[in-house]
Amino acid sequence: MTFHLLQRDRQGARNLAQILQYAVDKVGHCNLCRTLTEDSVCELCADPSRDVTKLCVVETPADVYAVDRTTVFKGLYFVLHGRLSPLDGIGPEQLGLEQLDSQLSSGNIKELILATNTTVEGEATAHFIADLARRHQVQSTRIAYGVPLGGELEYVDSGTLAHAFSGRTTL
Amino acid sequence: MTFHLLQRDRQGARNLAQILQYAVDKVGHCNLCRTLTEDSVCELCADPSRDVTKLCVVETPADVYAVDRTTVFKGLYFVLHGRLSPLDGIGPEQLGLEQLDSQLSSGNIKELILATNTTVEGEATAHFIADLARRHQVQSTRIAYGVPLGGELEYVDSGTLAHAFSGRTTL
Repeated sequence: MTFHLLQRDRQGARNLAQILQYAVDKVGHCNLCRTLTEDSVCELCADPSRDVTKLCVVETPADVYAVDRTTVFKGLYFVLHGRLSPLDGIGPEQLGLEQLDSQLSSGNIKELILATNTTVEGEATAHFIADLARRHQVQSTRIAYGVPLGGELEYVDSGTLAHAFSGRTTL
Repeated sequence: MTFHLLQRDRQGARNLAQILQYAVDKVGHCNLCRTLTEDSVCELCADPSRDVTKLCVVETPADVYAVDRTTVFKGLYFVLHGRLSPLDGIGPEQLGLEQLDSQLSSGNIKELILATNTTVEGEATAHFIADLARRHQVQSTRIAYGVPLGGELEYVDSGTLAHAFSGRTTL
């Protein structure tokens, strides 16, 4: 990219540098959900039409977009900016769990949806936060494991298929 | 493959031809579940330790292996050898649904698990067979849609994520 910009598009490079500088200076974290935003509170948290009784915990701001694009969830989000990973020095403080704790203690939240990744660390993080929710008598739920849409059973890994079987639903 | 065999491994080619001839002559369909087998009834159907009250409907013999490898399912199978696809001339007769109908009418089966692929045709086939089960008062269930194990939300398609959200479970 650097070679392309220096050889062919010096004006583009200047624009890119300015925009990057602007983003680094202006984009901070939402005071409520910790996602990336230019304001003190992000658009989603400021939207009065969102359901404040449902809070969805995700690992990254990109996950907020991924989940919101599905349009099935109308509640609010909380962004961890990572997952528990003691070997990398990432513990509850780095994930803002104190802030989540105080939101749970407010009593507004009826359901905490744990939408961390389905990796080992994501799963461990979900269980850690479920314990936190239990202490505040808030119900926590986990997104479903299963076969993706359009998937062929033959090419799905055994672990996923086992989960899809255990989680089968009545038609 | 042909060039390799003719140039370097003529004996291997002879063996392959013999084995293929043998397979074509000897391998037929199980009288009960329609999977591929050398006997009139396949190993799984003949195994007295399998739970005869659960029947899992799959599209191909390869799916039988995929599901059985997970070890979470101890019932019996029924292989459709395809899925409903009217444009290709594949209707209920081609899928052996009359045979399935008579198995359902026996009254032994308590749960019919529809493990067809999560593609559009697989889904349509599952709903068609669920109707059939309803007429015999047999409960039918569908394997879960969701995020595969080890999946990152950011890279999962919206449809799957929407299903994973709707199908969330209490922790």
